[in-house]
Amino acid sequence: MEKPKILILSGPNLNMLGKRNISIYKEDSLDTIHEQLGKLAGELGLEVVCAQENTEGEMINWLQRATDEFKGVVINAGAYAHYSYALRSAIGSSMVPCIEVCMSNVFTREEFRHNSVIAAVCEGVIIGFGSQSYMLALKAMAQIVNKDSLLSSV
Amino acid sequence: MEKPKILILSGPNLNMLGKRNISIYKEDSLDTIHEQLGKLAGELGLEVVCAQENTEGEMINWLQRATDEFKGVVINAGAYAHYSYALRSAIGSSMVPCIEVCMSNVFTREEFRHNSVIAAVCEGVIIGFGSQSYMLALKAMAQIVNKDSLLSSV
Amino acid sequence: MEKPKILILSGPNLNMLGKRNISIYKEDSLDTIHEQLGKLAGELGLEVVCAQENTEGEMINWLQRATDEFKGVVINAGAYAHYSYALRSAIGSSMVPCIEVCMSNVFTREEFRHNSVIAAVCEGVIIGFGSQSYMLALKAMAQIVNKDSLLSSV
Amino acid sequence: MEKPKILILSGPNLNMLGKRNISIYKEDSLDTIHEQLGKLAGELGLEVVCAQENTEGEMINWLQRATDEFKGVVINAGAYAHYSYALRSAIGSSMVPCIEVCMSNVFTREEFRHNSVIAAVCEGVIIGFGSQSYMLALKAMAQIVNKDSLLSSV
Amino acid sequence: MEKPKILILSGPNLNMLGKRNISIYKEDSLDTIHEQLGKLAGELGLEVVCAQENTEGEMINWLQRATDEFKGVVINAGAYAHYSYALRSAIGSSMVPCIEVCMSNVFTREEFRHNSVIAAVCEGVIIGFGSQSYMLALKAMAQIVNKDSLLSSV
Amino acid sequence: MEKPKILILSGPNLNMLGKRNISIYKEDSLDTIHEQLGKLAGELGLEVVCAQENTEGEMINWLQRATDEFKGVVINAGAYAHYSYALRSAIGSSMVPCIEVCMSNVFTREEFRHNSVIAAVCEGVIIGFGSQSYMLALKAMAQIVNKDSLLSSV
Amino acid sequence: MEKPKILILSGPNLNMLGKRNISIYKEDSLDTIHEQLGKLAGELGLEVVCAQENTEGEMINWLQRATDEFKGVVINAGAYAHYSYALRSAIGSSMVPCIEVCMSNVFTREEFRHNSVIAAVCEGVIIGFGSQSYMLALKAMAQIVNKDSLLSSV
Amino acid sequence: MEKPKILILSGPNLNMLGKRNISIYKEDSLDTIHEQLGKLAGELGLEVVCAQENTEGEMINWLQRATDEFKGVVINAGAYAHYSYALRSAIGSSMVPCIEVCMSNVFTREEFRHNSVIAAVCEGVIIGFGSQSYMLALKAMAQIVNKDSLLSSV
Amino acid sequence: MEKPKILILSGPNLNMLGKRNISIYKEDSLDTIHEQLGKLAGELGLEVVCAQENTEGEMINWLQRATDEFKGVVINAGAYAHYSYALRSAIGSSMVPCIEVCMSNVFTREEFRHNSVIAAVCEGVIIGFGSQSYMLALKAMAQIVNKDSLLSSV
Amino acid sequence: MEKPKILILSGPNLNMLGKRNISIYKEDSLDTIHEQLGKLAGELGLEVVCAQENTEGEMINWLQRATDEFKGVVINAGAYAHYSYALRSAIGSSMVPCIEVCMSNVFTREEFRHNSVIAAVCEGVIIGFGSQSYMLALKAMAQIVNKDSLLSSV
Amino acid sequence: MEKPKILILSGPNLNMLGKRNISIYKEDSLDTIHEQLGKLAGELGLEVVCAQENTEGEMINWLQRATDEFKGVVINAGAYAHYSYALRSAIGSSMVPCIEVCMSNVFTREEFRHNSVIAAVCEGVIIGFGSQSYMLALKAMAQIVNKDSLLSSV
Amino acid sequence: MEKPKILILSGPNLNMLGKRNISIYKEDSLDTIHEQLGKLAGELGLEVVCAQENTEGEMINWLQRATDEFKGVVINAGAYAHYSYALRSAIGSSMVPCIEVCMSNVFTREEFRHNSVIAAVCEGVIIGFGSQSYMLALKAMAQIVNKDSLLSSV
Repeated sequence: MEKPKILILSGPNLNMLGKRNISIYKEDSLDTIHEQLGKLAGELGLEVVCAQENTEGEMINWLQRATDEFKGVVINAGAYAHYSYALRSAIGSSMVPCIEVCMSNVFTREEFRHNSVIAAVCEGVIIGFGSQSYMLALKAMAQIVNKDSLLSSV
Repeated sequence: MEKPKILILSGPNLNMLGKRNISIYKEDSLDTIHEQLGKLAGELGLEVVCAQENTEGEMINWLQRATDEFKGVVINAGAYAHYSYALRSAIGSSMVPCIEVCMSNVFTREEFRHNSVIAAVCEGVIIGFGSQSYMLALKAMAQIVNKDSLLSSV
Repeated sequence: MEKPKILILSGPNLNMLGKRNISIYKEDSLDTIHEQLGKLAGELGLEVVCAQENTEGEMINWLQRATDEFKGVVINAGAYAHYSYALRSAIGSSMVPCIEVCMSNVFTREEFRHNSVIAAVCEGVIIGFGSQSYMLALKAMAQIVNKDSLLSSV
Repeated sequence: MEKPKILILSGPNLNMLGKRNISIYKEDSLDTIHEQLGKLAGELGLEVVCAQENTEGEMINWLQRATDEFKGVVINAGAYAHYSYALRSAIGSSMVPCIEVCMSNVFTREEFRHNSVIAAVCEGVIIGFGSQSYMLALKAMAQIVNKDSLLSSV
Repeated sequence: MEKPKILILSGPNLNMLGKRNISIYKEDSLDTIHEQLGKLAGELGLEVVCAQENTEGEMINWLQRATDEFKGVVINAGAYAHYSYALRSAIGSSMVPCIEVCMSNVFTREEFRHNSVIAAVCEGVIIGFGSQSYMLALKAMAQIVNKDSLLSSV
Repeated sequence: MEKPKILILSGPNLNMLGKRNISIYKEDSLDTIHEQLGKLAGELGLEVVCAQENTEGEMINWLQRATDEFKGVVINAGAYAHYSYALRSAIGSSMVPCIEVCMSNVFTREEFRHNSVIAAVCEGVIIGFGSQSYMLALKAMAQIVNKDSLLSSV
Repeated sequence: MEKPKILILSGPNLNMLGKRNISIYKEDSLDTIHEQLGKLAGELGLEVVCAQENTEGEMINWLQRATDEFKGVVINAGAYAHYSYALRSAIGSSMVPCIEVCMSNVFTREEFRHNSVIAAVCEGVIIGFGSQSYMLALKAMAQIVNKDSLLSSV
Repeated sequence: MEKPKILILSGPNLNMLGKRNISIYKEDSLDTIHEQLGKLAGELGLEVVCAQENTEGEMINWLQRATDEFKGVVINAGAYAHYSYALRSAIGSSMVPCIEVCMSNVFTREEFRHNSVIAAVCEGVIIGFGSQSYMLALKAMAQIVNKDSLLSSV
Repeated sequence: MEKPKILILSGPNLNMLGKRNISIYKEDSLDTIHEQLGKLAGELGLEVVCAQENTEGEMINWLQRATDEFKGVVINAGAYAHYSYALRSAIGSSMVPCIEVCMSNVFTREEFRHNSVIAAVCEGVIIGFGSQSYMLALKAMAQIVNKDSLLSSV
Repeated sequence: MEKPKILILSGPNLNMLGKRNISIYKEDSLDTIHEQLGKLAGELGLEVVCAQENTEGEMINWLQRATDEFKGVVINAGAYAHYSYALRSAIGSSMVPCIEVCMSNVFTREEFRHNSVIAAVCEGVIIGFGSQSYMLALKAMAQIVNKDSLLSSV
Repeated sequence: MEKPKILILSGPNLNMLGKRNISIYKEDSLDTIHEQLGKLAGELGLEVVCAQENTEGEMINWLQRATDEFKGVVINAGAYAHYSYALRSAIGSSMVPCIEVCMSNVFTREEFRHNSVIAAVCEGVIIGFGSQSYMLALKAMAQIVNKDSLLSSV
Repeated sequence: MEKPKILILSGPNLNMLGKRNISIYKEDSLDTIHEQLGKLAGELGLEVVCAQENTEGEMINWLQRATDEFKGVVINAGAYAHYSYALRSAIGSSMVPCIEVCMSNVFTREEFRHNSVIAAVCEGVIIGFGSQSYMLALKAMAQIVNKDSLLSSV
């Protein structure tokens, strides 16, 4: 039986994780996170496809494929979260559940980061746990899409 | 004699028309609309070139060609209408008339949709008539660019 | 068979069209517009009744007659569009579709003109095409109320 | 002995009660309400004069007569409540107590309905009880103007 | 047959009625009001339970008992009306109708008093009639919960 | 030789001058003011036509006659000054100079009175001198329309 | 008998009148205005002392002398009108009437000019009549301080 | 060896879970959630103490005990999250990590629910997963306080 | 002769003084402050009763006792200062002078701390001097209630 | 041994104390206050230099001397407190502690007085105690600069 | 020895320079500017790489290369400057100094142009000097990155 | 031939440069900057007159001399930049180009520093380069006033 496929979509500058200002994101690189997500997905009976894009329109392209190809989306929209109503529309018109993740606690940073224009079209939001934000989101997604997954026993 | 060429430019997620939340856009697909526009253009003595882009920068590329290649632009900027000052600049620096269209009545939807940052650099705006918004805009454009068109008799 | 009747209702100061500041409204007089609307209505298989009122309450009186006497309303509320919640209630409680028109592009004028309190209770809005705004609205109305009209062939 | 006379003044669109959107105002017609008010007035030892006007200026005309002809005013200003500072001035310069009534609970409706510009010049406000809002207001008025009324025993 | 029970719940500082700044609340003490409410309840075929609490959480405790023990709630939330979203949640999740009362006309006082965060989850609001605000609310409640009450004959 | 005619237009509730709250407008009646204006006009070589209207639309009717019949307008728009964009449009599209007058010093009163939506389309504004506000406005108007008037010697 | 003395106080940059941007202030120089005020004062039975200061503190010094030395103040505070609460305090604590004048119609200029922080502590305000604003203010002041002046006959 | 103790603190009205408006919180009762948390805690090598309070001050009392008695806090502050700066101070002055949870997706509900005044003093926030929000928060807390827990193998 | 009694009332989290984030409040414990206040009171001819409450309602209970039992109140409302209109009402309806104190300089901290909703009903406010804020407030109170105190000689 | 010198700096219009509107500042003259401060300084082991300036720039001149010549500054900036960022910079770049004082309780007066732009660069603020505000500030300053002063025994 | 490399990055529509609305940007083409920058770079001992992109994501791609390949960035973000928090993040996470340039004086244009969301993560900003803005920025950059450059002698 | 004279005008507290908070302005003293400007002016074929004033009015005095005595102005208005509309008027009515400079990057500092009320009447603005801001401004000015200067060869 085929495993449910989940899209892990990361936005602008997240490919620079581990290379930038370490006081805020004292994190692994995005590759390491993708690897960890792949491992966790296996344990949860899921399959993940991981993508990163700097261009808003490319992120929309990925989201448009979601209805047909994925059972759910975990999205870290980076700074686009604060103003990209185009991403919001893309998520809103997809037919699969979406979970928003932020690695840092945005509420302790600049005012403009306190607002997400995509949160209202997501199932839920996970903020502030570094790379664990992705892991928690994947676990939450497993609950939603895979009622018979291993997680249920955890 | 060559017919005046009009650019019909649609923005992010409009390629998903007919595939998404039908309660708001109970519309034909964008291909059908393009076809209808082509037919109407013929009746109006115009020629249309139809494009759709998810990427803001690609929309700007189209608009930059407008001065040289088109006599007018009909634009449905999708969600970019609410924040893309870059599109506004592209329209503002083109030398041809532009008409903005919205398919749904944005004033009955979320607050952020009530504002268009490109309206002020367009000739006019047509809002709320579904795919007919495009048709009405093309008729209005015909009035502006083609004083001898068939429409004048209508 | 009787033709569907459409109310064309214009608000304060629109009776001065052609007599006032020509840099903004380089338009025909309201009488000429009414005449053109009558002619277009004929082509569209519609009948129009045209009225203009300076008094908010008189506009409400017209709108209250709409449910019983008209199949649709095309309204240019003039400056009342920016603050008359009473007009909004009158439109909202009528049982027929209403289309708002503005002759000038309000988004290029004073800030207070950018907002219409009646747009949210209308089917759609047409802004910025001078007297053609009325014509386009009538065509849009024909689409809505008269599915067998001549327009359908256009 | 003459009974104290109370003006019951209703504003724009309230003459359409019972004819409009029944999900919000599932009410009797205004005539029925006037009749009920007349009956209740009798029980309270009062006399009522009931008027309805769509025009702001006509409402002002009624209010200007209040000082000389009435002992109190019960006003449902309709949508004028949200912006008519002219009504506010008319109430403010009358010499008799005024009570504002709203039939629907305005706080569950659009944002603009949450604010009344006339409340501050009224004795009190009664909101949300349908036609009973008028009845409660008349009872409150009886308390104020008719200290010997039958109500006092209730 | 048991009479419908109504909770009369008053918030912070209302136990000081009659002891404080008499220019605003020239009122009886809360005990006197409770007594009058008890008498009126009898006439209306109702029973009242009267409570006053200074602590937000205690008010919530009372409201949580409403679904099981009462047919309706009359609430004067005092200053909590202006910011207690916790009270709003408590009212919103109860299954019985609630009426908000204010003794003074809040619209003639400080700006912060103009807003009630609980009004939107109440059936209606009665403002400005001193202790009569409670009486009018009880009469309105009788209309809602006790269709055969004595009031109907009034 | 015919004297230049000036329209003196007063808005809602100003017919109640002298009858209302004397602490703010300790003024003569409007009739007395009109009489004084007539006398002053004579001294200034002007003729005045004085009108008062409670209805916004009627004020607009007067203003629409201004271009043809008057050389200038002195307007006290009453409470309409704070929100009537329709009056603003009427003044803006007239072809004669207009001066706004307020009898009381609006800046010492409620916040909403601090703003005039018509001031920007008037030549100037005179605020706070009671009935003298009208007199000063007429003198200012004489300066503008009647360069040879008696005032020049004063 | 000594004539009442009036202080004419002009603020920053008004000494440049006639030397600057003539499209806004097509005015005489301040010296010419002072001269005209002197002449008008004579006709009104008043004496004027004219001063101009660029420094806020120097304007305050003048205003502090007002209670003892002057019967009234005519002030054109220039740009200080928009933010100098210190001037406001100086006027507010003087014991003589003050009239604010603006030469240009501030409501047709930048947003920040629409607000005067001193208007609320003045008797009245005169806006938009160029140098005549000063003259009208002096006439208004004569009415207030000199009930037997020549103006009364005008 | 003693297991790290975690405080699970729920705020006003959360004791009504399962008893209230099921369209928003289609959840188990709070008791069931506490039971599930207890079970999960065991798997994670943690111990939980679960408390619910309607009174803000009682929640503060619990939080003040955190530094001494707990290794971490999972808090669902209910409506207090939107305004209780007192809770914020209590969390801010505790010495242990705190995670905020919301059961519903607050961004799809009323405007006032979009803001949490405590988020900025928490490690992270988990929103929108119903009772799973608590579970995910406990897993996140395990990561933080119990580096050798069973979770690490998951 | 009995010494005037002053209530020293401290709000939420102030019982944690000395135990929390020392960079902001490098202060003694609240017990030490109470002790110092007791000693200072003696020198000033006053008696103090010191209380601390985490619950808003309990603070109100204390304030309600003020009129009868105390000559004045020194209040440090903690975070309640920023939103507790209920405390404001309690202070406003007490009949004794109240002085607000803040230990830290709130203006150097988060935006929400800049506003106190109780300051307007207090005699005065003392901000930023750590535990000395309480001492200064008590000295100020002595001036107000005890004109013959020892302080007068200081 | 030389006593620490403290600058007492008062801003615009404070030289008029005792001469102006007595309902707000029922105070001694500034000279009397200076005299009292001198006496108190002696008791506190301090020396004071007292200055008053109407001109913002002169106040800055005084503050610039502070680092070299004074151990602390007590400032009552008058109306400049509400907008003089230049004073703020002057205080911020001085190297000595500064205490702000207001004589009246600004929170009971006009809105614009509620904000001080200099508070954030001061050690603390003392508001509302009339001339005692200065005295309390000097005592607070003594605590800061003169740890061995007589005050410590009080 | 290799010269320090500086990235000159221009945003949307700047490739249209010289082709668009000449009243605002009466400038050379971008190619000409690049050429001049190249020449100036040589004089300053620098090397420049010039790029222009219409797509936000492509600009981010360039900025991500900055840490490794460039010693500094001069950026004219075009309209993206007003809303692209994604560009801000890209600049903020690069490790090299960045200078923002605007060719026109944005403060004399539309309100939305007054704000730059990237200025706070740049070293400095140069606004309003046409193509010279780029030149001045390059000179400023030379000061920062090339302490031994020829400029130092200028 | 006489060299064009440029006024270098610095505002409040800038005379303290080098003496104050070194973390923000790690700069030379103003005297050193003036000296460097003098040297640079020579190289640019210009002459500079350098002034510094703490008093707003004195800065205005300097600016009023600009039209007659200078070819351009370089102004660092210090904190006056954020609120001095009087300076704005002085610059606006001078007839010579003005360039605004800020030494620190105001966008990384307090919110109030982000706004300059004088920028809109200047040619351009240079922000954030410490004393080099002045140098860059002088070079920019040379471009404007001295088309044949030595700079052109640089």
